[in-house]
Amino acid sequence: MVVGASATPGKLGAVMAQSLAAYDAPLRLVNSRGEGMHASVSEALAAGDGVDLAVLCVPAPATARALRECAEGGVRAALVCAGGFAEAGAAGEEHQRAVEEVVRETGIRLLGPNTSGFFVPGRRLLASFVPGVADLAAGPVAVVAASGGVNHALAFRLQQAGIGLSLGVGLGAGVDVGAAAVLEHLVDDEQTRVVALHLETVQDGPALLAAVRRLSAVKPVVALVVGRSDVAEFARSHTGALATSWRTTRAVLRQAGAVLVDDEDGLVAAVAALAGRRLAPSPAPGVALVTGQAGPGLLVADAVQTAGVTLPRLTDATRAAIAEVLPPLTFQANPVDTGRPGPGFDRVVSAVADDPAVDAVAIYALTEPVVDLPAAVATSGAAGRVPVLLGVDGPPDDVAAQRAAAREAGIPLISGPTALARAVAALADDATGRFACAQDVTPPQPWPGLTGPWDEVRGKELLDALGVPTPPRRRCRDRAEALEALAALGGPVAVKLLDATVLHKTEVGGVHLGVRTPEAMGRALDALEAAGAREVLVEAMAAPGVDLIVGARRDPVFGPVLLLGLGGTAAEVLADVAIRSVPLSDRAAAGMVSDLRARRLLFGHRGGPTLDPAELAGVLTAVGNVLLVNPDVAEIEVNPLRLTATGPVALDAVVITPA
Amino acid sequence: MVVGASATPGKLGAVMAQSLAAYDAPLRLVNSRGEGMHASVSEALAAGDGVDLAVLCVPAPATARALRECAEGGVRAALVCAGGFAEAGAAGEEHQRAVEEVVRETGIRLLGPNTSGFFVPGRRLLASFVPGVADLAAGPVAVVAASGGVNHALAFRLQQAGIGLSLGVGLGAGVDVGAAAVLEHLVDDEQTRVVALHLETVQDGPALLAAVRRLSAVKPVVALVVGRSDVAEFARSHTGALATSWRTTRAVLRQAGAVLVDDEDGLVAAVAALAGRRLAPSPAPGVALVTGQAGPGLLVADAVQTAGVTLPRLTDATRAAIAEVLPPLTFQANPVDTGRPGPGFDRVVSAVADDPAVDAVAIYALTEPVVDLPAAVATSGAAGRVPVLLGVDGPPDDVAAQRAAAREAGIPLISGPTALARAVAALADDATGRFACAQDVTPPQPWPGLTGPWDEVRGKELLDALGVPTPPRRRCRDRAEALEALAALGGPVAVKLLDATVLHKTEVGGVHLGVRTPEAMGRALDALEAAGAREVLVEAMAAPGVDLIVGARRDPVFGPVLLLGLGGTAAEVLADVAIRSVPLSDRAAAGMVSDLRARRLLFGHRGGPTLDPAELAGVLTAVGNVLLVNPDVAEIEVNPLRLTATGPVALDAVVITPA
Repeated sequence: MVVGASATPGKLGAVMAQSLAAYDAPLRLVNSRGEGMHASVSEALAAGDGVDLAVLCVPAPATARALRECAEGGVRAALVCAGGFAEAGAAGEEHQRAVEEVVRETGIRLLGPNTSGFFVPGRRLLASFVPGVADLAAGPVAVVAASGGVNHALAFRLQQAGIGLSLGVGLGAGVDVGAAAVLEHLVDDEQTRVVALHLETVQDGPALLAAVRRLSAVKPVVALVVGRSDVAEFARSHTGALATSWRTTRAVLRQAGAVLVDDEDGLVAAVAALAGRRLAPSPAPGVALVTGQAGPGLLVADAVQTAGVTLPRLTDATRAAIAEVLPPLTFQANPVDTGRPGPGFDRVVSAVADDPAVDAVAIYALTEPVVDLPAAVATSGAAGRVPVLLGVDGPPDDVAAQRAAAREAGIPLISGPTALARAVAALADDATGRFACAQDVTPPQPWPGLTGPWDEVRGKELLDALGVPTPPRRRCRDRAEALEALAALGGPVAVKLLDATVLHKTEVGGVHLGVRTPEAMGRALDALEAAGAREVLVEAMAAPGVDLIVGARRDPVFGPVLLLGLGGTAAEVLADVAIRSVPLSDRAAAGMVSDLRARRLLFGHRGGPTLDPAELAGVLTAVGNVLLVNPDVAEIEVNPLRLTATGPVALDAVVITPA
Repeated sequence: MVVGASATPGKLGAVMAQSLAAYDAPLRLVNSRGEGMHASVSEALAAGDGVDLAVLCVPAPATARALRECAEGGVRAALVCAGGFAEAGAAGEEHQRAVEEVVRETGIRLLGPNTSGFFVPGRRLLASFVPGVADLAAGPVAVVAASGGVNHALAFRLQQAGIGLSLGVGLGAGVDVGAAAVLEHLVDDEQTRVVALHLETVQDGPALLAAVRRLSAVKPVVALVVGRSDVAEFARSHTGALATSWRTTRAVLRQAGAVLVDDEDGLVAAVAALAGRRLAPSPAPGVALVTGQAGPGLLVADAVQTAGVTLPRLTDATRAAIAEVLPPLTFQANPVDTGRPGPGFDRVVSAVADDPAVDAVAIYALTEPVVDLPAAVATSGAAGRVPVLLGVDGPPDDVAAQRAAAREAGIPLISGPTALARAVAALADDATGRFACAQDVTPPQPWPGLTGPWDEVRGKELLDALGVPTPPRRRCRDRAEALEALAALGGPVAVKLLDATVLHKTEVGGVHLGVRTPEAMGRALDALEAAGAREVLVEAMAAPGVDLIVGARRDPVFGPVLLLGLGGTAAEVLADVAIRSVPLSDRAAAGMVSDLRARRLLFGHRGGPTLDPAELAGVLTAVGNVLLVNPDVAEIEVNPLRLTATGPVALDAVVITPA
């Protein structure tokens, strides 16, 4: 049923009716002034059996009333296309509240408002006001997009890449049905083999993450998150919601098992690959690249390696097998440069797929009339043993023919060296993401019973209780205690202001380092007193090392999250940080180090200390889990956590209680 | 003429002959065993008038002899397809030397070896052994690729994007004709409006840069450089040459006016945009985005801004003009969200193009039957005033129809939000690159007549002579002089080992900072003596600030290059550096700061100092130009150059002479 149908060609209500006519069920059109249409919702409902879906193409002010008529007439699902709701100011918010009230009171499920609809090509169910959707093919990909426009743009781009859809949905404002609900539905949808998720904002973070976790365990989820640059103002005009942190959203989706892509081209390449055979979970799958031309092969290899995927050197046995087929003129260690593909290409592919270090095979070649690549790959039998991706460039007709043949053989075909590399990276990311997800989260230690106010000494007592190393120290209430502490601790000490209300001690002159003598202690205490100190912390200086920052906070969307970064302003400004939601598994914690682009600094760089990832994972988990067991901790930060030759040690600890 | 022609379908010599048959000139085939072919080169040459091009499809060992026969018979140009030359070990090197000898002795121009050829679709000149090239359309783009395979892959990808070619050439081993020669040729080639350059290695850096400078002044050059990850071993097997530094190559190409892209998808988007109207040189062009759908518009805006392009807020006058057409439901400040395009779309585009802050207009929309976008854009007249890019997604046939209409109207059409964003970024990069290139280089100061050995004091005397600030200091030969220096300089001083043979003073314990008292000086001198010091430098400690690294060295490929980075290991490991070739203009020097991702640290970050870019440019130019005026300086490094509240000051100076 279309409410607000139109007979004027091009109008939303007309195009929507035209799209829905393809569905195998009677279509009822409602427009009080439309010739041959029902004059009202109630008249239309009375005209026959129950209505599966009401599509409302009426303006925002008329929507709630029409929706209520549908719901009260027994309709269980509705699509609202109009804009002009919460994104459009006070009047729009009023209309939205009215719609939400109908949903709450009647239980009708609602998609929208402010969306161009959804489509299920395999059932010819096309609830879209973009007529081109009539030609979309059915296939294995479900698109779940924040925006109706992106849903359509992605559907058409997938169509161009020869990939069909099981479902395409644009959520729009998402006042009822949101991304999490659709993802949960897709867990058991047999038509869907891979899910493409586009996000602008996230309303219910935990529900979304739970859905992605459940879904990615059974089928790949590829996620494109908008908002790398500041697009908040425009985004809010679109959805009426604040943009969620791009960095946090990406990190926690990844932790839940999603494959992240940077743009829609990457999304198309990723779903093309993942609609085929999936890699088994693995911490570092090895990929072999077989190329018919060295130059494009170099482009692929360069992009694959830049994405962090390993091209392992093939074994001598594999290379011997290849050498039986190929002349000794080309590189054969991985990548394997076959030269122009010819007879024996299938044997090369087969040998490479059998290499023990190879978990997946990517093949690139220009189309050539002399060799039928999909047939050669099929003959090789490789695709029965490992995932195989075929990358092909050539005249459009040739590529289309090979794509059809590859589809028959069940082998994903991707056009373009870079797209092939992105496809390879997605295949590998799906495997590494699931590897990290496959482990249970580490249960939190019970709260050690400490209470605030959380000055640095109390904060470090908490760390001690959690098993996080801290330096020897003393709380000192007067000069005599401070001098005694210096004597007891020996060597150089740090002398710091002790006050739970001062969060940035350095900025108020509250930190004095390298104090060795009673005279120096006297000068430090003079300065601290002048800065208002009543108590001071005297603490042994730590050995030199590399400084890290570990922090946990409550994200407004996703709840408790944990952050790891390198110390120093450069790392901070370059946003070289790793983020995870809490609770997390040991693997997820250990993986935070791998996220840091400057991680090399932590592994013996220039004679520096070498990190034990498991030891750091223990610290990370302990700090993050604090937020789970104590609701009175809003935030906890260890800055710096110094990595020394004998392990990590927390040099500061800030615990913040809710405001 | 094809030497090594073949009658066996699929063989190189057969496909090559078939491709060349399309050319409007007699084709002579040579094969001693070929039926109906000439038995020898000399027989073929005797069979008619002169031969324009000899294509050699014979194996490497037979190439030099065949080439000599051609050259001595009057042929002036040859293409050698075979591999098996320098990239294939000792025997191959021998064959290559023989070919080079023929080139040197006869002056014949040679493309290859190890390439699949070249093509000029507009003249039906197709010297390629990939048959699909027969269908390539003539157009404005010249592809100059290191590899024959990449030349073909790019040609087919451009074909798919609806873009034709003026020339496609794969250089292969490039023993005679290299990239620089082809680029120089293209400066005056009227069929070529934009050049796509693919590089794996660079042999003659200065010639390449000179060619790019000349070419980019008259038409855009888009450059794709391979080698972001370590692909050196495979690359060498391909071309026989060492891979050039990816970072340096990209930086100096950019300085010469090229637009850099990261992959071949970016290359296609960039040439699509730049085949249209070019922006005027500008330090920061403003782009307006008009979108028919908010969601895809957000993807475009996000990617455009991430690429560093500004979307300026439209003026009130422009917004008032737009508001006459559009309902007040959508965002209209830039991006302009028109909602589904309808009547009046042309007036929106026109108003946006007239905005004084707008230098180019990008438009995105899904194809809709109700609106003819290319026609609306043409009606707007915007493309006559500023560059206009049209981004369209929809059913493939609709997109193809709109592409054809857009081509008629002279408006580049790009499919996909991300591709449109990349096209916008390329348009802007072409304008900013030319702005930086448009200034003459700063002539070097004459050499101040100093000589080594270059210990730190001598190095700083050089900096003083060049006008680079250094701290007050004294060279001290004994304890009495050091104590006198401490008294004279006052306050804390640095005491350093002075020895031109020690490059890393800190690592040998040669640096003592914060020395305030005669006792501390005594301890420092004890330690330095123990480390082998005979002379020491006593120097006033600089104020705190942000540390930079400035260095100049002689690159084996490009000659003198200058490097600017932030101090600290994190910035180093994250490779946050700017590189330029020397000599450089003030604009090029000032632009180095913009290249640093962490540049925010230099502009009052957390109460820190604020950089005067012109002042830093002076330091950079002075340091870089040292290499131009003194061949006895191999390398000079100022590490750190500290940015303080009162300006930059060089805290160390290392000058290295040739080994």
